[in-house]
Amino acid sequence: MDFINLETPALILDVDRVTANANRMLAHCKSKGVFLRPHVKTPKSTKVAKIATGGRMGGITVSTLAEAEYFANAGFDDILYAVGITPNKFNRVASISEATGKSLVLTVDSTAMAQAVADRALGNPVMIEIDCGESRGGLSQDDLALLDIARILGPQFRGIMSHAGHSYGTDQMAQVKKIAQEEIAAAVAAAERIRATGQPVSVVSVGSTPTVLHAQDFSGITEVRAGIYLLCDLSQYGRNICSLDDIALTVLATVIGHNKGAGVLTVDAGALAMSKDIGANNFLPEAKFGWLCDVETLAPLGLAIDIVHQEHGSVKIDDPVVFDQLPVGSMVRILPGHACLTAAGGYGEYHLTDGRIWARQDGW
Amino acid sequence: MDFINLETPALILDVDRVTANANRMLAHCKSKGVFLRPHVKTPKSTKVAKIATGGRMGGITVSTLAEAEYFANAGFDDILYAVGITPNKFNRVASISEATGKSLVLTVDSTAMAQAVADRALGNPVMIEIDCGESRGGLSQDDLALLDIARILGPQFRGIMSHAGHSYGTDQMAQVKKIAQEEIAAAVAAAERIRATGQPVSVVSVGSTPTVLHAQDFSGITEVRAGIYLLCDLSQYGRNICSLDDIALTVLATVIGHNKGAGVLTVDAGALAMSKDIGANNFLPEAKFGWLCDVETLAPLGLAIDIVHQEHGSVKIDDPVVFDQLPVGSMVRILPGHACLTAAGGYGEYHLTDGRIWARQDGW
Repeated sequence: MDFINLETPALILDVDRVTANANRMLAHCKSKGVFLRPHVKTPKSTKVAKIATGGRMGGITVSTLAEAEYFANAGFDDILYAVGITPNKFNRVASISEATGKSLVLTVDSTAMAQAVADRALGNPVMIEIDCGESRGGLSQDDLALLDIARILGPQFRGIMSHAGHSYGTDQMAQVKKIAQEEIAAAVAAAERIRATGQPVSVVSVGSTPTVLHAQDFSGITEVRAGIYLLCDLSQYGRNICSLDDIALTVLATVIGHNKGAGVLTVDAGALAMSKDIGANNFLPEAKFGWLCDVETLAPLGLAIDIVHQEHGSVKIDDPVVFDQLPVGSMVRILPGHACLTAAGGYGEYHLTDGRIWARQDGW
Repeated sequence: MDFINLETPALILDVDRVTANANRMLAHCKSKGVFLRPHVKTPKSTKVAKIATGGRMGGITVSTLAEAEYFANAGFDDILYAVGITPNKFNRVASISEATGKSLVLTVDSTAMAQAVADRALGNPVMIEIDCGESRGGLSQDDLALLDIARILGPQFRGIMSHAGHSYGTDQMAQVKKIAQEEIAAAVAAAERIRATGQPVSVVSVGSTPTVLHAQDFSGITEVRAGIYLLCDLSQYGRNICSLDDIALTVLATVIGHNKGAGVLTVDAGALAMSKDIGANNFLPEAKFGWLCDVETLAPLGLAIDIVHQEHGSVKIDDPVVFDQLPVGSMVRILPGHACLTAAGGYGEYHLTDGRIWARQDGW
């Protein structure tokens, strides 16, 4: 497309890459016999979500009620809100369900919130979250509260979910495989404990992109959740979860200044456009705040955003010839360190490489 | 106000604090005999901007064309877009000027962009940016291009601007004072060099909150720019630029989980709600991703967000009594590490402590 007239910074989405990433994961999950419930908190787009589900209008995961509302309004059903619910969100949950008639699945990990949901008689299906080692949300699989919650929820109780977010903390495949099996074991054990009381557990859900890709044995699991595989980024590349050619999200930026004395080239992609996430550097120290690439070929230029200010990205230049190659006013595309945060930087939309514009639902 | 029914995360603005911060800076600049052109990239709100200017509908600084358009549409005039302009933004600049009739002041630091502005005949006033030591945007004060740019711009040339962003890199007042005088010296020297060619320089503009507060001698300076003093944050507090009681921006968050086994309490304010900026920790290592405070009194609870995930903030709990004091469903207000980035996290609006809602203009 004709990038040169686009205002920058702009979020560029390569739909061919998204589709390839989505289809690879759909095929993988089919081969493993598990239902894929894509986490759409990364793309926050109905059009990307439809690619991720293979065309199905439902069976997705979201991380905000703004997403839940947006997807339900667009006709998506069976939407899992995978963040612990609290009473100040009940009105919104009720209004989404009433306005759209779509099923919004809630998440709890305490008897107090299970009781609050039951008392409010929202009627939504509810998952119980299990902590499989990340030490974030979730009950221990052997916590007695698990049985109390299932009992309090009664027919509203749908199943067990766990998320091995700590799988992003290693680049060792053996460790990812170990975490994947621990995630599965924790969820299955929790489900079995509830089943032993006579209560049915229809869904046992686990997942993160690394563990879904590398788990060896999904026995007892009915569905998996993953999201970042759709767009990919330097964090995933640095841990061998994707190739550079899988990265479907870039930031189009313009060179806005040359500070030749200081050896710094400035682009109009700073902390808001890229985010201040430096997690990619844990396993790819040269990732910095993102890699500058050729606008058309996406070939990396061997340059990174070294420092971010609110709107300025500073690129250290060792060879002055770069100033000639990238004059002020020229453009680059930047591979993000962490696509989820870069995409949520306030763009509100994607520019597709074919010129179309697709909306995103940011905020809460 | 009745926080308990608000959906979270929500951005809370204490207008009394904003007003006190604004009035203190207005009085300071008046006493120094310099015009204050507030940088409104932090609040991105017309109502906050009017407080910052003391009611004047103009004479402000912005960092995006989205802000420029929003403020011009609201009737603000004399708006400095303090980021280097490039040709892909000319259409937007022209449409803002034509639609509103308000003056939008541009920034350049190269002969190429000065020529592009002149060739396009936009007619907007233009500032030349000088690098006073931050090594970001701007020409060296002794760069010969300075005179070429002023000549190319002719009557469009308005003045010189510099920004000592490196003043945020120290907590030593002596160093801040030194940087402030270097900022002033660079801008004044550049202006004098242009005046020596016979061309008038009507504006000589410098500033960052620390240097505006601590410069000793503003001779030769006509105006100053600063922004973060309006809202303040733990970064400013950690460098003694403000007190805790000056921080006017907080994030209202709900406790969404207790992981007692791991000693972790989870709030619904993560990487998107708080940002991943950890700059405050440079001078306040206990800042982490923000401090949890009592919802009503804003007294710090001695707890910080230690880890952020996309929507989850994890708070390490040493004393289990905290789980009783902050049950699931209860609320906290969080002092941000860096207010500019926290506020830009996708909220789109402020909830005032008196219940009103004020809009923000995010994005580009």
